[in-house]
Amino acid sequence: MTRFGERFDVGFKDLLQEVMTALLPAVDKGLSRDQIQAAWIGQGQPTDGLSTALVADYMGLLHAPVTRVENACASGTDAFRNGVLAVASGVFDVVLVVGAEKMRDARTDVFGWRWAQLTRDLVWDFPLGITGAANFALHMQRHMHVYGTTAEQMAGVAVKNHRFGKHNPYAHFRAEVSAAQVLSSPMVASPFRLLDCCPQTDGAAAVVLAAKETAGRFTDRPVFVRGLGLGQDRAMHAHKADLTSFPATVRAARQAYAMAGLTPTDLHVVECHDDFTGIELINYEDLGFCAPGDGGRLLESGATDLGGRLPVNPSGGLLSRGHPVGATGVAQVCEIFWQLRGEARCQVDGARVGLTHTLGGPTATAAVSILSL
Amino acid sequence: MTRFGERFDVGFKDLLQEVMTALLPAVDKGLSRDQIQAAWIGQGQPTDGLSTALVADYMGLLHAPVTRVENACASGTDAFRNGVLAVASGVFDVVLVVGAEKMRDARTDVFGWRWAQLTRDLVWDFPLGITGAANFALHMQRHMHVYGTTAEQMAGVAVKNHRFGKHNPYAHFRAEVSAAQVLSSPMVASPFRLLDCCPQTDGAAAVVLAAKETAGRFTDRPVFVRGLGLGQDRAMHAHKADLTSFPATVRAARQAYAMAGLTPTDLHVVECHDDFTGIELINYEDLGFCAPGDGGRLLESGATDLGGRLPVNPSGGLLSRGHPVGATGVAQVCEIFWQLRGEARCQVDGARVGLTHTLGGPTATAAVSILSL
Repeated sequence: MTRFGERFDVGFKDLLQEVMTALLPAVDKGLSRDQIQAAWIGQGQPTDGLSTALVADYMGLLHAPVTRVENACASGTDAFRNGVLAVASGVFDVVLVVGAEKMRDARTDVFGWRWAQLTRDLVWDFPLGITGAANFALHMQRHMHVYGTTAEQMAGVAVKNHRFGKHNPYAHFRAEVSAAQVLSSPMVASPFRLLDCCPQTDGAAAVVLAAKETAGRFTDRPVFVRGLGLGQDRAMHAHKADLTSFPATVRAARQAYAMAGLTPTDLHVVECHDDFTGIELINYEDLGFCAPGDGGRLLESGATDLGGRLPVNPSGGLLSRGHPVGATGVAQVCEIFWQLRGEARCQVDGARVGLTHTLGGPTATAAVSILSL
Repeated sequence: MTRFGERFDVGFKDLLQEVMTALLPAVDKGLSRDQIQAAWIGQGQPTDGLSTALVADYMGLLHAPVTRVENACASGTDAFRNGVLAVASGVFDVVLVVGAEKMRDARTDVFGWRWAQLTRDLVWDFPLGITGAANFALHMQRHMHVYGTTAEQMAGVAVKNHRFGKHNPYAHFRAEVSAAQVLSSPMVASPFRLLDCCPQTDGAAAVVLAAKETAGRFTDRPVFVRGLGLGQDRAMHAHKADLTSFPATVRAARQAYAMAGLTPTDLHVVECHDDFTGIELINYEDLGFCAPGDGGRLLESGATDLGGRLPVNPSGGLLSRGHPVGATGVAQVCEIFWQLRGEARCQVDGARVGLTHTLGGPTATAAVSILSL
């Protein structure tokens, strides 16, 4: 990974070079560019030109085919999914998946409003004010109304994730926050206050995928991909039957658990899409960690804290690590990789199975991956 | 396919519905939406909101994961490639690949300049004037200088492809043009005159992919995917070593021929990227149909006309059928499918092996597929 944050020091091409420079020596037995047979990039919104050409050109992969996958905030996870499918096809033995996004000091006519427009329903919902924050806030308001989820429970997510992120050298924000700070921060889109929101971030992350038979060339301690899922939902909020749950997540999780032959009780560590504090609570429910409506209580029980039954977002999550759209899903895979190898900063003792989850657009796309030793 | 053209009657969502309505009854033994397990959409530039959600929602595929693939003008072919890899992985038996683009009467701040910017190198080349036409014109000027390729040879491509396209009910333009008309049309980006250029077009195309063991449920006359290739090149024109050839095409073709175990002499029919007349001539060379510099002479020989050794673009190509970016690569697959089954309008007698090719961005991405009976 590159350091995430307001990377005013670099542009998009520099992020690509930087993550490649970090990746090559990080592979246990070494990796050279010419061993990479194909690549996938997860990126939400191009800012510097044709992304696939920039990956080939600036990462030194002109010999390799490069595909860009875009699926809103699930772009990185879906790029990972397509890379895995390509290795599983037998056509490629070794592929690269990179996620990268330049959001800060990018041209605001490209990012910002442009991105907000094109990830909503542009004709109906966006003109009514459905920006990224408003989009998720509608769901949260309903969840609070139906289940009694509280602002204090939401603030608990920020406290937990920033406490973890303080130890993550790649994180955008590395300072703890108190519940009082969260609850007194300015309102952005009710019920989300400033400290309920993840930042817009620059950053890149990359992973190498190898066929099972080939992995031994690169490491004696591989991490295996067990399950993959991708789910969609209706685009317009007027068409959503129940705002308290995200069907895209439910569909993605069902596919991934089925492919892995595992259930939520088999998991030891999770990285999920906490773009807004309360959304992590809804994710608990949609991913099957607790019953509908019990997300807030699960947080309060300490189950998702370090030392609890199922620690969630020990990297700091989107709230602390930041959210460079295309990079987020790949960064989650990096964290689970480190957790399963016992190399994480906020290490979950004995973690052998982990899950990643991203959710985006008009809450209409979600992707899940399950990794294990 | 939907009809291609200036589809002022429909928006992007309507195109998705229209192509699904055309697809389902076109499958020999029938196809229902619930048989489609996953989908890929090739689209250059979103215009109406999150594309994957719109595919799921407006094509009736909420049960299926949907990935958007973007690779400039090769988006449709690369979506097809990723769909094939997914079936080859064994994870899915039946998938949909759709290409769709709404370019006319879309918001011009989204398409037009935005698209031109983000498919060039945005920092260096685009501010120097490297729009789509200028981009390809640089290569053509050099090809004319080095090899003596003529405006008359380029005009011959327009005459041939419009003669074919006249018979294609899906085509944007359905009228013949004369060489004199081409040569006297207004200059756009020297050496390309108006009738050397493909139009900007609305349209959608879709294909169903099934595992070999599953295809019998849908047809007794399947067409097989034999080879796939995707190639990149350096993004900036200042970095290109030789403007007379497209390394992206050469790389993509090499992969596809190798996977298929075939050579150019095994082909019977080709759909290639004639976004500008002269580019078809360079494609002849890069795809291995003739020696470097001989593209113009191959055209003049009649070899690529109907009745010749290797007819090229019997659909009318991008020049006549039009070029809805994401749809083009999938429409090429449709044409080759029809050719190999003997159902095409400008039928190549006895065609059993066909090739498709798209080329785009800063001439830095190209994709090739090879199909056969």
